[in-house]
Amino acid sequence: MNRILTYDSTLRDGEQCEGITLSLEDKLRIVERLDAFGVDFIEGGFPASNPKDIAFFQRVQDLPLKHARIAAFGSTCKKDVAAEDDRGLADLVASGAPVVTIVGKTWDEQVTRALLTTLDENLRMIRDSVAHLKAQGLMVVFDAEHFFDGYKANADYAMACVRAASEAGADSIDLCETNGGALPHEVEAIVAAVAQALPEQQLGIHCHNDSGCAVANSLAAVRAGAVQVQGTVNGFGERVGNTDLLTVIADLELKMGCTCVGEERLRDLTSVAQFVAETCNLSVPNHHPYTGASAFAHKGGLHASAIARFPEAYEHTRPEAVGNTQRMLVSELAGKASLIAKAKNLGIDLAQHADKTQEILDDIKRREAVGYSYEVADGSLALLLQWHLGAYRPHFTLESFRVIVDDHEDTGALAKDAMSEATIKIHVGDQRFVATGEGAGPVGALDNALRMAIVAFYPEVADIELVDYKVRILDENVGTDAITRVVITTRDKHGSWGTVGVSENIIEASWNALVDSIEYGLMRIGE
Amino acid sequence: MNRILTYDSTLRDGEQCEGITLSLEDKLRIVERLDAFGVDFIEGGFPASNPKDIAFFQRVQDLPLKHARIAAFGSTCKKDVAAEDDRGLADLVASGAPVVTIVGKTWDEQVTRALLTTLDENLRMIRDSVAHLKAQGLMVVFDAEHFFDGYKANADYAMACVRAASEAGADSIDLCETNGGALPHEVEAIVAAVAQALPEQQLGIHCHNDSGCAVANSLAAVRAGAVQVQGTVNGFGERVGNTDLLTVIADLELKMGCTCVGEERLRDLTSVAQFVAETCNLSVPNHHPYTGASAFAHKGGLHASAIARFPEAYEHTRPEAVGNTQRMLVSELAGKASLIAKAKNLGIDLAQHADKTQEILDDIKRREAVGYSYEVADGSLALLLQWHLGAYRPHFTLESFRVIVDDHEDTGALAKDAMSEATIKIHVGDQRFVATGEGAGPVGALDNALRMAIVAFYPEVADIELVDYKVRILDENVGTDAITRVVITTRDKHGSWGTVGVSENIIEASWNALVDSIEYGLMRIGE
Repeated sequence: MNRILTYDSTLRDGEQCEGITLSLEDKLRIVERLDAFGVDFIEGGFPASNPKDIAFFQRVQDLPLKHARIAAFGSTCKKDVAAEDDRGLADLVASGAPVVTIVGKTWDEQVTRALLTTLDENLRMIRDSVAHLKAQGLMVVFDAEHFFDGYKANADYAMACVRAASEAGADSIDLCETNGGALPHEVEAIVAAVAQALPEQQLGIHCHNDSGCAVANSLAAVRAGAVQVQGTVNGFGERVGNTDLLTVIADLELKMGCTCVGEERLRDLTSVAQFVAETCNLSVPNHHPYTGASAFAHKGGLHASAIARFPEAYEHTRPEAVGNTQRMLVSELAGKASLIAKAKNLGIDLAQHADKTQEILDDIKRREAVGYSYEVADGSLALLLQWHLGAYRPHFTLESFRVIVDDHEDTGALAKDAMSEATIKIHVGDQRFVATGEGAGPVGALDNALRMAIVAFYPEVADIELVDYKVRILDENVGTDAITRVVITTRDKHGSWGTVGVSENIIEASWNALVDSIEYGLMRIGE
Repeated sequence: MNRILTYDSTLRDGEQCEGITLSLEDKLRIVERLDAFGVDFIEGGFPASNPKDIAFFQRVQDLPLKHARIAAFGSTCKKDVAAEDDRGLADLVASGAPVVTIVGKTWDEQVTRALLTTLDENLRMIRDSVAHLKAQGLMVVFDAEHFFDGYKANADYAMACVRAASEAGADSIDLCETNGGALPHEVEAIVAAVAQALPEQQLGIHCHNDSGCAVANSLAAVRAGAVQVQGTVNGFGERVGNTDLLTVIADLELKMGCTCVGEERLRDLTSVAQFVAETCNLSVPNHHPYTGASAFAHKGGLHASAIARFPEAYEHTRPEAVGNTQRMLVSELAGKASLIAKAKNLGIDLAQHADKTQEILDDIKRREAVGYSYEVADGSLALLLQWHLGAYRPHFTLESFRVIVDDHEDTGALAKDAMSEATIKIHVGDQRFVATGEGAGPVGALDNALRMAIVAFYPEVADIELVDYKVRILDENVGTDAITRVVITTRDKHGSWGTVGVSENIIEASWNALVDSIEYGLMRIGE
């Protein structure tokens, strides 16, 4: 059996990472992308913890997922509370998720010193919680918290915990290396012992990277019999992070003869890494395994002739296998075939314009070199393609804008007295229009001014709504003078799209992304 | 034998990393630091490759090193050239380094297809080169290039290569996982086979991280009998990087019962990581094992009481063991215990102000509810605490600012013609000051204006540098009118800090974060 199930926890354990805050729309877009990539399970969050997670479990039910199953995360019932009376378990059931994952303790001392209950009561909590959820017809994953520390301290009790979950009907028991401190030989030995004791039970593995061994520990568990691997995209997570699910998938598929997402979808690995990172307002580190911009970078000249003679000596795997490239410049669109496929997604048939494809690729590379990123900016990419094909018909053109922001006194708190005003001069067809908009902020003022200027000509602009706005500084070594990339997410009643603007000036970058967002929206409506 | 030798290649293989360029002085300072840390061998570079490396090997001889030995790096003699006539070997000898490390091929196909010579000639090159260098009285390390790929392809030939080096007297044979593609179970099996075949020979290991397993592969080699580990500080290196020598040292010392630098010097681990990173003009990634700023970070509130009851459940090792510190992340869930711990990190003793603690917690909660986040904004949190304790002494106060951004034409590309101008009116003590700054963007213009206004009073502001600037829109349902959170990272020569600003207006939010960044920087300098 070399099919290994993948279980993504980016939206739950990954979001524990400092600095990551995902909006509801972000979470839904990540679900869609991971589903398309072929991930088997996507853990969405704690269904009871806050309004955003509650709304997530409602909204996600409307997504037309092709493959992935959504998991809601919680704990076993509380001590001295019956499973059927437990509020947390009831929230899990109410979430509507087809899979529920509950974490329970397996380390004897943690039960007695932290949970402050008896070892027997903890076994009851595990058994009753799993049985109760199974009785609701749900698929149940039992996350055995601190299993490896627990096993080292008291193997009999740790085994009794997973046996209780197993006998109560848990579909998968995922052994959690919660502290991240174990080493591969320990993980392999302990998982093998569990697999021997419970030969019929599906086992999974959940690791953290505190010893720098999360990937190796996960692979060691698979060698010992685990068939489900938990992790997060790019290893995002608190402290040192979780297992990077994407690296594990690549290692399993390319080096251990296992199947996770399959050879074809594995070629999306790099773009999935980039998409999720950008959505989290982060970057894939340049030197990240498989997906980093430098992962297959070679010093020019030094090796070039040697690479040509004996490529296996310089690459542990072909970069194309994971959608990366041997060059420095990495893009989902780096090759003609992928650009054609991407364009087709956007409803543009590039195959009919073979003469333009190289020109477009060159332009994309040039733009990505100065800071554009089209991974999350389908709208801007579609406009760029239309422009190259001579099919771009702008709905308006700018003559100039001026933005003024005034502020008085340093209140130190959430001040509301700063005022922004934007004046734009714009042409629609042969008419010139001047409009001034106000806003709490300068981009809002520009947005208001633009809408005011064009609404008489394009009343449908009222249906186009900006829903998210992100800013990244691309060269952190030059502070506020650096290149700024703005990504705007916009939606109408049919869906949402991303657009990108780049400039040394945050207002100009915002304006460029804003123009694309409205242009693409009007173009969609017009089609 | 649990003494494991450490061999650092930061100055040679690490410098292959894109973006790292070390001056001669940088290299010498890193040598001194690694020597003080207790590294056994420090590979300094290629003594023949450029004037800087030639000068390095001269200058390093004058350093009063306490423990480390300097290694010069090169290759076996060229094909069809006698070892005593080989220019590269002569350069190694002339370097004056007491240790020479020569790399030689061990993968049959690489010999025939890339080196374009016979298998026998390659064996001669290895044997003669090692013997020649030994005859000069040098310590010789043989780096067996591509050993693991070579062994998998033709074990007999790979073994013949290392046997040739061994018989010629190599002091250490370091098996190189050159491509970075191997997995721990493969490395362990192959090193064990070599150790069995050459029981008297000292073996070492040199890995790269392309499969995300460099640390685990190095540990696996030690388990199989290697007693010397090569790596680079922070894993710096080309592609995905080398083995992070510091992580391996910590794992070996804390988890495998080995001795590398010893318990006492292990407490310098984090500062060595930071020192080398800063010298390379890079940072230690926040989520790096052992040494990252977040490696021992915990969400406040949620776990604080549990950590107090059972700390082993939340830390795989004590952060003090590696010179790092536990960080409590202040969040919406913060409790008193974690706030007090966090304040202590910042050098503020809240325990002496018990009456203020609840007031501060309430204020933090109120601020986090409107969008502030102090997880990544230690600087703003410190100022807030000072304010509550009546100890905040602002270096300047704002009367008003005005920002104007002008743009003409919609160029559609990376336009450079938008201009920003900021005028600020500010009070320092009883003096009023008006200054105007320009910038590529509005925040840069504000930063310039502020610095211009205060530099005469606080010339030390010139040492404070903005290095990163992030923006998040917090309520995705209201687009550009939403609450904006700006987080700025600032550094001086002693470290870096984060500050946060929140407003409906991105410029005002930026201003607030900017003021905190400068205020906190001036406060640090003043202390």
